[in-house]
Amino acid sequence: VGEGFELATPDEELSLGVRVLNQVDFKNFIPNDLDPAISGLYLPRTRFYFTGRLTRPIEYEVSVQRSVEGVIDLLDGFVNFNFNEGFQIKFGRSIVPYSFDWYDHLEPYFITPERSLFPLNFGLSRQAGLMAWGYLGEGRLEYAVGGFSGGSIGIADDNTTRDAVGYVNWRPFLTDERFPRLRYLNLGGSIAGGLTVRPEAERPIPLRTSIQSTENSREAAAASITFLDFEEDVRALGDRVQGTLHLAYYGGGWSIESEVQAGGFQYKKMGSPFQPRVPVIGYHVTAAYFLTGEEPPDRTLIVPLRPFDPLHGQYGPGAFEAFARISQIHLGEEVFAFDLADEDFWARDAYLTDVGFNWYVNRFVKFYVDWQHANFGSPVLVNIRDGDRSRHSDLFWIRCQIWF
Amino acid sequence: VGEGFELATPDEELSLGVRVLNQVDFKNFIPNDLDPAISGLYLPRTRFYFTGRLTRPIEYEVSVQRSVEGVIDLLDGFVNFNFNEGFQIKFGRSIVPYSFDWYDHLEPYFITPERSLFPLNFGLSRQAGLMAWGYLGEGRLEYAVGGFSGGSIGIADDNTTRDAVGYVNWRPFLTDERFPRLRYLNLGGSIAGGLTVRPEAERPIPLRTSIQSTENSREAAAASITFLDFEEDVRALGDRVQGTLHLAYYGGGWSIESEVQAGGFQYKKMGSPFQPRVPVIGYHVTAAYFLTGEEPPDRTLIVPLRPFDPLHGQYGPGAFEAFARISQIHLGEEVFAFDLADEDFWARDAYLTDVGFNWYVNRFVKFYVDWQHANFGSPVLVNIRDGDRSRHSDLFWIRCQIWF
Amino acid sequence: VGEGFELATPDEELSLGVRVLNQVDFKNFIPNDLDPAISGLYLPRTRFYFTGRLTRPIEYEVSVQRSVEGVIDLLDGFVNFNFNEGFQIKFGRSIVPYSFDWYDHLEPYFITPERSLFPLNFGLSRQAGLMAWGYLGEGRLEYAVGGFSGGSIGIADDNTTRDAVGYVNWRPFLTDERFPRLRYLNLGGSIAGGLTVRPEAERPIPLRTSIQSTENSREAAAASITFLDFEEDVRALGDRVQGTLHLAYYGGGWSIESEVQAGGFQYKKMGSPFQPRVPVIGYHVTAAYFLTGEEPPDRTLIVPLRPFDPLHGQYGPGAFEAFARISQIHLGEEVFAFDLADEDFWARDAYLTDVGFNWYVNRFVKFYVDWQHANFGSPVLVNIRDGDRSRHSDLFWIRCQIWF
Repeated sequence: VGEGFELATPDEELSLGVRVLNQVDFKNFIPNDLDPAISGLYLPRTRFYFTGRLTRPIEYEVSVQRSVEGVIDLLDGFVNFNFNEGFQIKFGRSIVPYSFDWYDHLEPYFITPERSLFPLNFGLSRQAGLMAWGYLGEGRLEYAVGGFSGGSIGIADDNTTRDAVGYVNWRPFLTDERFPRLRYLNLGGSIAGGLTVRPEAERPIPLRTSIQSTENSREAAAASITFLDFEEDVRALGDRVQGTLHLAYYGGGWSIESEVQAGGFQYKKMGSPFQPRVPVIGYHVTAAYFLTGEEPPDRTLIVPLRPFDPLHGQYGPGAFEAFARISQIHLGEEVFAFDLADEDFWARDAYLTDVGFNWYVNRFVKFYVDWQHANFGSPVLVNIRDGDRSRHSDLFWIRCQIWF
Repeated sequence: VGEGFELATPDEELSLGVRVLNQVDFKNFIPNDLDPAISGLYLPRTRFYFTGRLTRPIEYEVSVQRSVEGVIDLLDGFVNFNFNEGFQIKFGRSIVPYSFDWYDHLEPYFITPERSLFPLNFGLSRQAGLMAWGYLGEGRLEYAVGGFSGGSIGIADDNTTRDAVGYVNWRPFLTDERFPRLRYLNLGGSIAGGLTVRPEAERPIPLRTSIQSTENSREAAAASITFLDFEEDVRALGDRVQGTLHLAYYGGGWSIESEVQAGGFQYKKMGSPFQPRVPVIGYHVTAAYFLTGEEPPDRTLIVPLRPFDPLHGQYGPGAFEAFARISQIHLGEEVFAFDLADEDFWARDAYLTDVGFNWYVNRFVKFYVDWQHANFGSPVLVNIRDGDRSRHSDLFWIRCQIWF
Repeated sequence: VGEGFELATPDEELSLGVRVLNQVDFKNFIPNDLDPAISGLYLPRTRFYFTGRLTRPIEYEVSVQRSVEGVIDLLDGFVNFNFNEGFQIKFGRSIVPYSFDWYDHLEPYFITPERSLFPLNFGLSRQAGLMAWGYLGEGRLEYAVGGFSGGSIGIADDNTTRDAVGYVNWRPFLTDERFPRLRYLNLGGSIAGGLTVRPEAERPIPLRTSIQSTENSREAAAASITFLDFEEDVRALGDRVQGTLHLAYYGGGWSIESEVQAGGFQYKKMGSPFQPRVPVIGYHVTAAYFLTGEEPPDRTLIVPLRPFDPLHGQYGPGAFEAFARISQIHLGEEVFAFDLADEDFWARDAYLTDVGFNWYVNRFVKFYVDWQHANFGSPVLVNIRDGDRSRHSDLFWIRCQIWF
């Protein structure tokens, strides 16, 4: 459908498609005198996707990502047995069916540059696992249920954790002629339970506002405000339970997405007898509207009605989509009471407001222009050199993305 | 031949073929209470091969591997000058012509999921070098001889070692009409000598049963039982000589492979005046039989006679191949006498029995189902947390592999 | 043009070209008893380029490099808005328009295997940035001006630096019928200013003779003589200004390139109150001549007039190009006076002479054969085990390169 390239053998039994994603960020923090966060250019994601068929019902994907840290690793590597639309089995490393914000659509189709606060910091990302999934009722009900190897710092999995995950998305009016305007209404939720049986080698990664990271690297720290950093001797250990409920609507040029998330995460401070469970809740509401008339049925490829393509005499403006999002996260007082993090420097409440627009130059090139205002429940250490703390922070953010 | 994709310029002088390998392992250790080994999902190999011609006689390969540690690196990178079938020169990084188990066929064509004990732990893997090789006598005699940069921990080569390697494989009856059943009988051997002139930065990697690894990483340790771990202050230093003899037979649906290996490896315990030479011997015998009628002439692509391809009305079972292997390794008493490893925790004898089957769903998708029983000559530390030691261990192992 | 492969959609609006570069080095140091430098085989560069169009005026490149350290990372990742030949905007990670030796042509087209001393050690390599560039006057004047995220150890950018860079290359007689022999005369220069606002985590990388490296790794140290290594507690901190002037001529089979470079680089010795600025000057003059009649207009793809291609009955010698280069670098006495490096072990003057030839077997395969003699202003520590120091060193160097 105009996305990527596909090679296939003459009998069409074997195919290889190639897709590429590259994102370049310009981030300007206000005030500018922060440390480790620093204004500048970042390369959050470069991805190569290789996908196709190995005879018709067997599909595969092998993809590779270079993340902001400069680390290249396997993103996905799975085989999908597509018995029929309603029952498919996926085996290998793939995205975990947890949270609409994670599972429903890929990064290039986001409204805002990155996910909202809870999924950004407590999402299950990609893991190795076995998963049954499919679409029932002519596509009205999407489900996925699986067992996964568990989330972990770093992309290499040392399997000290286990996850069981289930996901449902229901589009009740998808095939109902009576309510055409509600056709692309999505309702659903997901639930995940996991167990970390041995302490990881490193503490959990810090909580951040504008980057998704699998390593606690210098580069990740430079690319975002951190609002909660765990103490050196804290480890994820014990159980985790987390659930989400979502409501999303697409239609008439509008994209409206909302999700509430809640979870409990057990930690261990080494040397301490306790294994406190920290409750975390979050939500986000995002709304976007195409000013240029496009009316996508979900977050997918946008083909601008009036693309910018001067060599074909097309001087259209491309597509413009204005957006706004509010997103909040709240951690229980246990995080400070059990000395998992230092109350003097970090906050257990964060509140983000994003306002901006997306400019789709053509099918392949998209600019995100975002103003992100962050408020914190208590002063946050924004400059570790000077010891400066602040209850808020602003970020002006331009992302240039190519995707085909 | 139905494998991979190839692009070529119209004059066919330049070509680029793309091939992909992805393996996903489910490993269940019995008993399950081990540390660092842990049951779970692993991604032992993801590979991208790019191969082709640079005008007809000049061939190249550049390939990249992602191994279980999450490290992506160059696998092969060489140019081959194909003057004629009998005399070819290969320059660059490639597989070293040592051991039938390593050199004769690629990983996707294995009978058992991984190599036998000696090649798994003392193989020469891939190195940069210059090598002459070819097929003489209408393919009856394959030879290879070369100089290589030497094996080393990690995939980046810091060239503190040197290797000279020679390999011969003889198929005496390949073109002999009188003994059609012996056509694919293989006899041969290989020899390698090397010198490590400076101590590496790290100790040698531990000896393991079910994973091949170039780094002593947490992930590699989790994916396999370790039966001998060198002391922290031990380094490979001095000379190495190792040889192999093999006998393999393919025909009538059978694959029978056997090899004996012997070598001497010099080590140095830092601070000690000695540089003990540890003799190591090993062997394996592997037998496999296709229950579904396929009769391959060597370990190569299997096209099932009755593939599973429901969209073309083919509901065949694919190909089934039952296999069994015994494999043993024995290290000299020097390894304990000179305190290279701790006798209380590790064994210098290991004996593996593998029984299982391979299911070739179609040309591209293969499942290995293996039961691996390991016996050790003395109790081995299988749980470093509790200090538990054991003389045996079982592993139930499923590998899903795609290869095209 | 016979280079690489290109896929395109039927409407030619989206295209994906694939190009591959692989280099294998044999380096023999004389004398051979050096440490950490050691004779052997090295893999300095393996690159995959993915380039193309995203509708006609919008071009992209995403490329990946594996360097001598075994590290794979993003090389380039940018979008270029090609409004017209004279005005283009490039956004993302790309080569910085500083120094003719860096910006004019890609590595596969080099005369000598690596760049000359100043660009090799003080070049700006690749950075994320925003750049305007183009060709004016029917190609006679090439310009580029941009802002970049600043050079840094390692390929992941943690953005503690900023660079502004400008570049001009003028071919005054390119379209002038009166002086056909001066058609490919190039005159120009570049200037770059930067600021490092926070000390990096590591000291600057050492100065070397025959490898370009972004990490101070064991492998990089093994692959080249080091003539100046900074003290452990030295950091790049403060401003940098550097400029170059170049004169190059191509024609009649000749390639003549020359450049002078000068700069001032501020460093900080931790614990010391000073931030000394070290002046550095350098130059190189390189001449090469095709013995086999090829007459390229610049450093670009060479199609040998008589290629070696026996399968098409072509037994030509390929193309031969003899070359010689002198290259010098001089650092101010501040580098020793402020204890940035140890005068007893390192030199602040280095002088390289390269003599050799390039053999272009065909369009895709090139061998560099180089004798490199290095002289140092004072004895340099060439064997850290024995403490041997020397004022000179020789290197016999063969590089096998494939590029398509």
